[in-house]
Amino acid sequence: MYNFNCDYLEGVHPNIIKALEETNMVQQQGYCNDEYTHQAKELIKRKISDQDVYFLHGSTACNKLLIKTSLRPFESVIACDNAHINTLETGAIEDIGHKIEIVEDEDGLLIPEVIDKFVSERMNDPAYFHKPIPKMVYITNSSESGTIYTKERLMEIRKVCDKHGLYLFMDGARLAYALAAKNNDLTLKEICDIVDATYVGGTKCGAMFGEALILNNDEFKLHFKNYIKGSGMLIAKSRFLGIQFRELFTDDLIFKLAEKADEQADRIRHRLQEQNYELATQSTTNTIFVNMDYERYHRLKHKYNFCENYKTDDYINIRICTSWSTEEHMVDELIKDL
Amino acid sequence: MYNFNCDYLEGVHPNIIKALEETNMVQQQGYCNDEYTHQAKELIKRKISDQDVYFLHGSTACNKLLIKTSLRPFESVIACDNAHINTLETGAIEDIGHKIEIVEDEDGLLIPEVIDKFVSERMNDPAYFHKPIPKMVYITNSSESGTIYTKERLMEIRKVCDKHGLYLFMDGARLAYALAAKNNDLTLKEICDIVDATYVGGTKCGAMFGEALILNNDEFKLHFKNYIKGSGMLIAKSRFLGIQFRELFTDDLIFKLAEKADEQADRIRHRLQEQNYELATQSTTNTIFVNMDYERYHRLKHKYNFCENYKTDDYINIRICTSWSTEEHMVDELIKDL
Amino acid sequence: MYNFNCDYLEGVHPNIIKALEETNMVQQQGYCNDEYTHQAKELIKRKISDQDVYFLHGSTACNKLLIKTSLRPFESVIACDNAHINTLETGAIEDIGHKIEIVEDEDGLLIPEVIDKFVSERMNDPAYFHKPIPKMVYITNSSESGTIYTKERLMEIRKVCDKHGLYLFMDGARLAYALAAKNNDLTLKEICDIVDATYVGGTKCGAMFGEALILNNDEFKLHFKNYIKGSGMLIAKSRFLGIQFRELFTDDLIFKLAEKADEQADRIRHRLQEQNYELATQSTTNTIFVNMDYERYHRLKHKYNFCENYKTDDYINIRICTSWSTEEHMVDELIKDL
Amino acid sequence: MYNFNCDYLEGVHPNIIKALEETNMVQQQGYCNDEYTHQAKELIKRKISDQDVYFLHGSTACNKLLIKTSLRPFESVIACDNAHINTLETGAIEDIGHKIEIVEDEDGLLIPEVIDKFVSERMNDPAYFHKPIPKMVYITNSSESGTIYTKERLMEIRKVCDKHGLYLFMDGARLAYALAAKNNDLTLKEICDIVDATYVGGTKCGAMFGEALILNNDEFKLHFKNYIKGSGMLIAKSRFLGIQFRELFTDDLIFKLAEKADEQADRIRHRLQEQNYELATQSTTNTIFVNMDYERYHRLKHKYNFCENYKTDDYINIRICTSWSTEEHMVDELIKDL
Repeated sequence: MYNFNCDYLEGVHPNIIKALEETNMVQQQGYCNDEYTHQAKELIKRKISDQDVYFLHGSTACNKLLIKTSLRPFESVIACDNAHINTLETGAIEDIGHKIEIVEDEDGLLIPEVIDKFVSERMNDPAYFHKPIPKMVYITNSSESGTIYTKERLMEIRKVCDKHGLYLFMDGARLAYALAAKNNDLTLKEICDIVDATYVGGTKCGAMFGEALILNNDEFKLHFKNYIKGSGMLIAKSRFLGIQFRELFTDDLIFKLAEKADEQADRIRHRLQEQNYELATQSTTNTIFVNMDYERYHRLKHKYNFCENYKTDDYINIRICTSWSTEEHMVDELIKDL
Repeated sequence: MYNFNCDYLEGVHPNIIKALEETNMVQQQGYCNDEYTHQAKELIKRKISDQDVYFLHGSTACNKLLIKTSLRPFESVIACDNAHINTLETGAIEDIGHKIEIVEDEDGLLIPEVIDKFVSERMNDPAYFHKPIPKMVYITNSSESGTIYTKERLMEIRKVCDKHGLYLFMDGARLAYALAAKNNDLTLKEICDIVDATYVGGTKCGAMFGEALILNNDEFKLHFKNYIKGSGMLIAKSRFLGIQFRELFTDDLIFKLAEKADEQADRIRHRLQEQNYELATQSTTNTIFVNMDYERYHRLKHKYNFCENYKTDDYINIRICTSWSTEEHMVDELIKDL
Repeated sequence: MYNFNCDYLEGVHPNIIKALEETNMVQQQGYCNDEYTHQAKELIKRKISDQDVYFLHGSTACNKLLIKTSLRPFESVIACDNAHINTLETGAIEDIGHKIEIVEDEDGLLIPEVIDKFVSERMNDPAYFHKPIPKMVYITNSSESGTIYTKERLMEIRKVCDKHGLYLFMDGARLAYALAAKNNDLTLKEICDIVDATYVGGTKCGAMFGEALILNNDEFKLHFKNYIKGSGMLIAKSRFLGIQFRELFTDDLIFKLAEKADEQADRIRHRLQEQNYELATQSTTNTIFVNMDYERYHRLKHKYNFCENYKTDDYINIRICTSWSTEEHMVDELIKDL
Repeated sequence: MYNFNCDYLEGVHPNIIKALEETNMVQQQGYCNDEYTHQAKELIKRKISDQDVYFLHGSTACNKLLIKTSLRPFESVIACDNAHINTLETGAIEDIGHKIEIVEDEDGLLIPEVIDKFVSERMNDPAYFHKPIPKMVYITNSSESGTIYTKERLMEIRKVCDKHGLYLFMDGARLAYALAAKNNDLTLKEICDIVDATYVGGTKCGAMFGEALILNNDEFKLHFKNYIKGSGMLIAKSRFLGIQFRELFTDDLIFKLAEKADEQADRIRHRLQEQNYELATQSTTNTIFVNMDYERYHRLKHKYNFCENYKTDDYINIRICTSWSTEEHMVDELIKDL
């Protein structure tokens, strides 16, 4: 059985295992006062401007913390319908007190004009005080559709945010895969300078667990460590977050892993198109969405494990996922069978 | 420099490193559907009754989740003054909406009669509706003073809880050290049957991170995995929690580690008494609290790193901590120098 | 100018003013220990079974309190798209931590089969733990469309709730108007026996402010007064809530007021149909929704104030509202002009 | 029986009853768009600088709203032990997520040096990130001990707040009584200019219910009406809050009522001192605290109803309360009997 259902099937990149072994008995202070956390931050800071960096154990944790700290109680967050916070986090954002307001998207990407219109109408509504005040735009890069933000689109959204005083927050659970896409024209530095906050996800790109949260907006920075602790998110043995990100950012390992995964996905995509499969989104990253007729699906499913999203009478929508650990021969095999 | 300041200075027990290596490239499903989580749960369940087991990344996370799910909005939790939730969690319990009500303790241990009196008075107060309803007793074993609960004391507290309809929750960040103490007369099974919930802390006893939360009260069990997810606490690659607890509970490793640490602490305690140091608490576990005069302290501090708690004119209150990884020769050295 | 835009334009029913005067200098204890609160509760209890009754200052307060106390953190509430909690309460339900899950409705009324299907699919979703657990059905009677629940529909919804272990909560901001509708076949007693909680709204039916919250489910009852206080919702001079509901439930005043309002709305509805206006909903209560062409609307708007909901190219959707205080001659005038 | 147990025993000042009657059938828009709310705000604004004014139904509501909007999740509020938010609001502040940190007080009044020391020590604690960040000073004027803040003390506290970046919030449930005290040297305008927010309580000074919340800090002002609505605190028929405060601020009615009450309390206090009763606090306002021996207490309690606070072997601590409605002959009688 070949698993293509997600990008967190294996353990961690061997470099991390090696570092864990080598450093295991070195004594280190806890709570982000260890050397590895320091080293990891330094490596990341070389690639960005003067943003603050914190390591957290997962992406829902990042989303909750960032949204909770930036919104007043009656403020809402704008997102698209398939946003992870809306569909797959068990009400995590409502749990911290905020309404998610869904606006129309384009293949998982938000549309600057749509945001602008939505906020303008809300603020001009005479009964606006019966409704939340939109205060944050939440985007995901790469999106849940596997698509990515171009520099132009991101800048346009920033402009809309500035016009209305909105924060811009980029969910980066798969940011490495976005940055490695062939059609990407943004650098990590540019993104960090444009958004108020984002993160580089490790969990889905070779780490055991962990996301590197990057705070650009000064309002968020003050006493952020207290905030992590009070939220129950501070890992005592922070060395284990530090060491992973030290390895992932040494020689751009994380970006090289993502590049390889995107390339494997490109190969699969190319074959799918050749064979006239119906691609459900214009993904250019490691997640591919296909509306597959049942005949083909039943033929493949005995050998391959895909992620089943939903079914219609005519087809099943599936996700085919490559990852940092996808081996070339698996892809060869799949291509042959498609 | 010898570090005796805490029990989370090194990485992890070598067995865990070994298991990480061996299983690293095995594909496993995420979100607690991996084999290692299953194996770890089975090992733990053999030592307890039919309680539910979940693995979480840290003890503050356990405290928040358990307290939030069990209390209605106006209910409070009873604890002692030096309770971790009261002093060292950055307001984590208030963050989820609950007042901590402090009652008198005995060396970090709650007193059944004191709890009984406190709750009785509150419920008989004609203005009781202006005040929270106490609904949970939070105890820590071993306590923040290093002391432990005897079976008798725990049963007496359970009786008070039953009388008043209170939940009993045991913080077990150092439960292994408590169970390994020479004066302990409780088994893990007995504890799990008596309390509504507890956890066995891995973070401070040889794991990278992680606590095994054990739910005894059926009210807490339903859909607990949804709850962990919505709280941002569900680790996608759950295999890394599973594998650690599989190793820690294989051949009772965690309890053996704790036993060794407690023995080292006993040796230090014995020497301290011989040398007429003033022990600040009646600890029998791996944390020792000493009111040390400044002369002795200044002599030792160039070679040893202790945890400084507070200072008076006459002495400094310090914590000396052994752990699963404390080496015998370090203790020999310290004993010689005390 | 004649105002037909809402049902809270005037002060209070004259009986309440009279009672305020007569009792003003009588000394009464606060916090629900006054005689008038007691008398009001007795009057209401005669019309229902053994439910508990509490008086709160407004309907959003009732919705927040009831939903917060009944749901665990990861549980959601099912409602229709135009539910007040979804559209006009500034994110009040998300503010207390819960996601509202929107299902298809029928003119503002929930459909038993739709609820059943929604919950069944959620609970059978293999990824259900990434999603909230639906735990409450929130309905409004009369609905935001002016329609009402028949006994049959309500019983069918109750059955679905029982099947899935859901609470059933009826928003009763306009419950008096529902009970007074010609096509109503439910009594207050029957409703209170069927739902887990509901309330009889005073604010929109002749009171200064205030709703009589009725708790049927025993789980909600315990220490509810503590809960109101901790939520900042306990009125110190509870006499002012008590006296109003004493008057409103004396000789069924509130129901007589509602009946008169519904009758005036019937007259208007009849005229609208005669004149071929397009009714937007099948309302049978005091709120009438019309899709009015702009020619007619501009002719009327200089003399009448309606509530403007939304505009299309062809018409404006307006709400025409009668109330406990609508005078017959105003309605005569409007009918003449329609 | 003469009731001296609290200041909310009667209904409302007759001027309010009269205004309710006169305006009852005037149609007014809801949600703060009525004329009376506008008039009341204008009257209050004449007495202060350019602060924003909102009317809320009660003081716990004011405390919750103000504290929740101003603190980030991990920030705490400094208060004295007998602060209303700490003792008599059923955990209302913890309910919104914040720890109350108790510091030493002086007869219910906070001490500038104590606050300074507390915050300095916290911020210099190397383990400060395990603890909340103090961000607000909560004071009560008149205090729960009946004492008041002098201009000097208030200015000193402001200085400490500025030094550490703290908000200063004055609970004004009995602010009118404080301003009317003989030893008061502050005006309402001065207070509003010094604090970040305060309120003038109506509930305990002649209103049915209601507090006039005054926001001085610009950060709090934006979209505050949305915030009130989302919190379930927006009264639909706002006219009833408006009309009360219009009356209370017409010709300084509220301050005249408070002055009379304070004078009656002064008479009682004078007699108590003459008769060698032990005053428990240095109150100069309408609440008097006495440690009364049981002989005297039992003699008085058959004729007078006081508020019983607590008992010792030697005496009972009681509160004697005058109010806007205390009649002179009652005081004469009490004085005779003391």
